[in-house]
Amino acid sequence: MDVDKRIDELQRLAATQSSVIGLGGGLPSDELFPRAGLARAFLRAMRDPNAGALQYAWPEGREALRGWIAARLNDRGASVKPDDVIVTSGAQQALAIAAQLALARGDQVGVDAETYPAALDVFRTRGAELRSGWDGVRCFYAMPAIGNPRSRAMTAAARAELLSKKIPIIEDDAYAELRFDGTLPRPLLSESRALVWHVGTVSKTLCPGLRVGWLVPPPAERERALELKHATDLQSSSLGQAVLEKFLERDDFDTRLVRARRFYRARAGRLLRAVRRALPGWRCDEPEGGFALFLEASEPGDDRQLLEVATRHGVSFDPGCMFRPQDDSAPLALRLCFSYVRAADLEEGARRLAAAWDGYRRDRDVLQPVDGGRR
Amino acid sequence: MDVDKRIDELQRLAATQSSVIGLGGGLPSDELFPRAGLARAFLRAMRDPNAGALQYAWPEGREALRGWIAARLNDRGASVKPDDVIVTSGAQQALAIAAQLALARGDQVGVDAETYPAALDVFRTRGAELRSGWDGVRCFYAMPAIGNPRSRAMTAAARAELLSKKIPIIEDDAYAELRFDGTLPRPLLSESRALVWHVGTVSKTLCPGLRVGWLVPPPAERERALELKHATDLQSSSLGQAVLEKFLERDDFDTRLVRARRFYRARAGRLLRAVRRALPGWRCDEPEGGFALFLEASEPGDDRQLLEVATRHGVSFDPGCMFRPQDDSAPLALRLCFSYVRAADLEEGARRLAAAWDGYRRDRDVLQPVDGGRR
Repeated sequence: MDVDKRIDELQRLAATQSSVIGLGGGLPSDELFPRAGLARAFLRAMRDPNAGALQYAWPEGREALRGWIAARLNDRGASVKPDDVIVTSGAQQALAIAAQLALARGDQVGVDAETYPAALDVFRTRGAELRSGWDGVRCFYAMPAIGNPRSRAMTAAARAELLSKKIPIIEDDAYAELRFDGTLPRPLLSESRALVWHVGTVSKTLCPGLRVGWLVPPPAERERALELKHATDLQSSSLGQAVLEKFLERDDFDTRLVRARRFYRARAGRLLRAVRRALPGWRCDEPEGGFALFLEASEPGDDRQLLEVATRHGVSFDPGCMFRPQDDSAPLALRLCFSYVRAADLEEGARRLAAAWDGYRRDRDVLQPVDGGRR
Repeated sequence: MDVDKRIDELQRLAATQSSVIGLGGGLPSDELFPRAGLARAFLRAMRDPNAGALQYAWPEGREALRGWIAARLNDRGASVKPDDVIVTSGAQQALAIAAQLALARGDQVGVDAETYPAALDVFRTRGAELRSGWDGVRCFYAMPAIGNPRSRAMTAAARAELLSKKIPIIEDDAYAELRFDGTLPRPLLSESRALVWHVGTVSKTLCPGLRVGWLVPPPAERERALELKHATDLQSSSLGQAVLEKFLERDDFDTRLVRARRFYRARAGRLLRAVRRALPGWRCDEPEGGFALFLEASEPGDDRQLLEVATRHGVSFDPGCMFRPQDDSAPLALRLCFSYVRAADLEEGARRLAAAWDGYRRDRDVLQPVDGGRR
């Protein structure tokens, strides 16, 4: 059986078993979803004959929403007009459109040593060749403000070096507004408008169920991007856009972000402390934002196999191999999300993971012959 | 300027000017949208912690919704399990996924002499070569139950001949449930499960704003289709799916369809009578369902140019060239949608179209030299 399929199976299993503490997945906390505010926004959208929440709409998306997106980018130093923005069905569709237009089959695309798995899927689907780093590649996929899975910002030196390459960049800004220190770095878009495909979303800051993301393509590519968006799914959800637009009319989004950062920062600290206690030999950088910790063991191993064992111990995670452009799983690594589970489960999750790690090493030592694998 | 861009401009202009009677676009009537029922469904979805309306979900879509789709197909003679169904972001995304998996760059895809423009866009984006008819093509795109723009069913003989070719078929079933006689033909899916990519949607029967469609791929292609769906946009809108699921729990969908058929049938008859009165020289088949009439003039001409004139006369339509695989506009033709405008505007729309036709011919006779164009 294909290994990715097995990971998928295990993750689905974990999601349906309430006894398993699910530390995988990268989901935002349900606790932060503004249910009442969205319900009021929905009812206003239903009553407004001009809201068009149920009808077809233009492929580029609703104008007021594009205006809101452009204004937020401009507050960070970009220079974007509402018409430069294309509303997409989540950030994923923005990535897929950018990949299709920026990459031809067989092109090399550069990525970080570990990066967002569904971006890797897009590039693979596109027939691109994945490379770690930006030297000599056709295009680079970057998460400069907050990376995934390491939850760290790109350094100023790395940003400058990447920009000096003058290659197309797909900038995934999904977690930018969830930096724990509340600072918002300038998007790469503001440094290199003609080369950057800027991708954003409200999936992490508000909720993913609306499926509202966006793409700001290089100006010369805007028309092709819009045609491709139209051919892909005609338009993004009128309902999701109308509800979001009505919601934003009455929401203080920046105050919402302050609360969300405080919420996730507290959880990040709690899981980091628990993990350092339970797995003292593992390496983990302090996250600067986002939803997850990235843990690396001090020895090589098979993180898929560890997931098998962990699921039996009542905890799940995202194996490190998912995040890597090449399918090697050494050093053994994993992503733990503090964002979604109940806060009270964070310590128990870390304890179960430590028990699973012990179990995994026992199994491995029993199964592996002492001469290191030769028979 | 690119001609399609000019059509787009004119259609956007018509949409923003209330003085223009818009007979283009293929939109369902706002009058049939069950606003109150959808609002109640939304509130139930917000209150149900298991509805997951705001959270991420699996790429294949919600299980109860897939069950509803499978059951309706099985009532028509298919044999489909809920797990065979992939919920897509409208029928358009289902077409795009099917095209990407069934066609390689340069493959020939067969279509009707006139067909759905956004399907043509998908095939062009895919780099496929468009052909009229099914002889020798790699794959055929069919709308067997009700075609677009002619609003007629495929004949039994044509169905049998197509099926005898044993080629992959992309079956677009968007209007199947809106046949005026209320009969539901067996989907091609039920005749050739291994070769048919079946595409459906609630955009015409309920409302497009939810962006809920579906794809039933051939069983051997299900896994690839699901991977591509995931890479394309992770999943379709959780909100749209949850609202629809809650809505269907309490809705009598078949009674809804009876009302919708009666509504559109009455409008179809009214526009057909008006058009035959106003443009007696034009040919138009009686529609068997759907949203539109397809009119053909008895002489060649430029239907884009007619649209320019018509917009000045306060009426718009979809030029025939949009529906044709090759860019030739002879004979002059156009699609008129009776579905969206106010019923009271149907006769006036036909009158304005007749006035525009007179104006177009006058302009043409003045501008064209008597020797037929040679100078």
